[in-house]
Amino acid sequence: MASTDKPDTESGKEVSQPPQPVAPSTATSLFKVDVVLRLLLFAATVTSLVVLLTSKQTIGGPFPAPKIEVKFDNSPAFIYFLVALSVAGLYSIITTLASISVIHKPQYSTKLLLHFAFWDVLILGILASATGTAGGIAYVGLKGNDHVQWNKVCNHFDKFCRHIGAALAVSLFASFLLIFLIWLNVNSLHKKIPK
Amino acid sequence: MASTDKPDTESGKEVSQPPQPVAPSTATSLFKVDVVLRLLLFAATVTSLVVLLTSKQTIGGPFPAPKIEVKFDNSPAFIYFLVALSVAGLYSIITTLASISVIHKPQYSTKLLLHFAFWDVLILGILASATGTAGGIAYVGLKGNDHVQWNKVCNHFDKFCRHIGAALAVSLFASFLLIFLIWLNVNSLHKKIPK
Repeated sequence: MASTDKPDTESGKEVSQPPQPVAPSTATSLFKVDVVLRLLLFAATVTSLVVLLTSKQTIGGPFPAPKIEVKFDNSPAFIYFLVALSVAGLYSIITTLASISVIHKPQYSTKLLLHFAFWDVLILGILASATGTAGGIAYVGLKGNDHVQWNKVCNHFDKFCRHIGAALAVSLFASFLLIFLIWLNVNSLHKKIPK
Repeated sequence: MASTDKPDTESGKEVSQPPQPVAPSTATSLFKVDVVLRLLLFAATVTSLVVLLTSKQTIGGPFPAPKIEVKFDNSPAFIYFLVALSVAGLYSIITTLASISVIHKPQYSTKLLLHFAFWDVLILGILASATGTAGGIAYVGLKGNDHVQWNKVCNHFDKFCRHIGAALAVSLFASFLLIFLIWLNVNSLHKKIPK
């Protein structure tokens, strides 16, 4: 394969050979890995979303004991978390479709890799910060903070906290998936550069 | 300089031209922008660190009124924030030096861009999540949360909250710098790919 790149020095006629560092089959198989990872990202964000949305818990009651309900939207941090997960989920659908379409039209692969790298980084920033925000609040809920008299609430709202914890774990996994996707794409771009 | 790499084909007058899509001067100027951005990243992380470390505030007193001291290490979220800022600051020094060294040895630029893209993404993940974590806690400190009876504390600890807010703002700026650095590097890699 590599020998075809060399100029035909015998005749002195050089065929203008466009550099083709990556064989199309390799590029396609890279996009297949990309599609699988993006589908996994979609699954992770949707799982995390569902677990977050079903975290509602009511304790207390029956009358006269007061009923206390806790939901994810009691804290702006979890609302931000919800928005970030939705954005990442939607993004993963769109990019999965884009990635599938490039398997059939490999000539657009370089351009798409560049776009992916740009947007993946932005979504990573959003998802990582949202996971951090929700995680910070969840930690105070779990442990409390004596310095400012914020009491822990997870001893009362066990189901709620379990759901938040699971959503956070899956979202952390999704963040690592995004990091891995960016690495994969940058590496693919790098492989296209002639040595 | 570059001509020494080429095979000397006396008979076939055509010299095998390794694809050189980016002129060395362009590559060098890109690394100059890179160095400036990394120095800016260093300045931002150090500023944020200093502002965070000087956030200590004592209210109350003199005797018999109780003295209450608040410091960043009262919350694990701010400790994580401190660690992430330190890591990002250290990283920015190392990569600034690496970037400067490549201006003098442009032949390593592609490899370095690849390494930068890998590590920048990881540091972005750490810094964005830490900014989110500290931001989430700071927001509760500012507004409180009635649902779980976490009282706001910023009405008492005004200086502390100002410092935390400023550190968060500068750290957010540093995160965007990192995103911009990754974009720049991926773009540089993309430009090296022959059309």
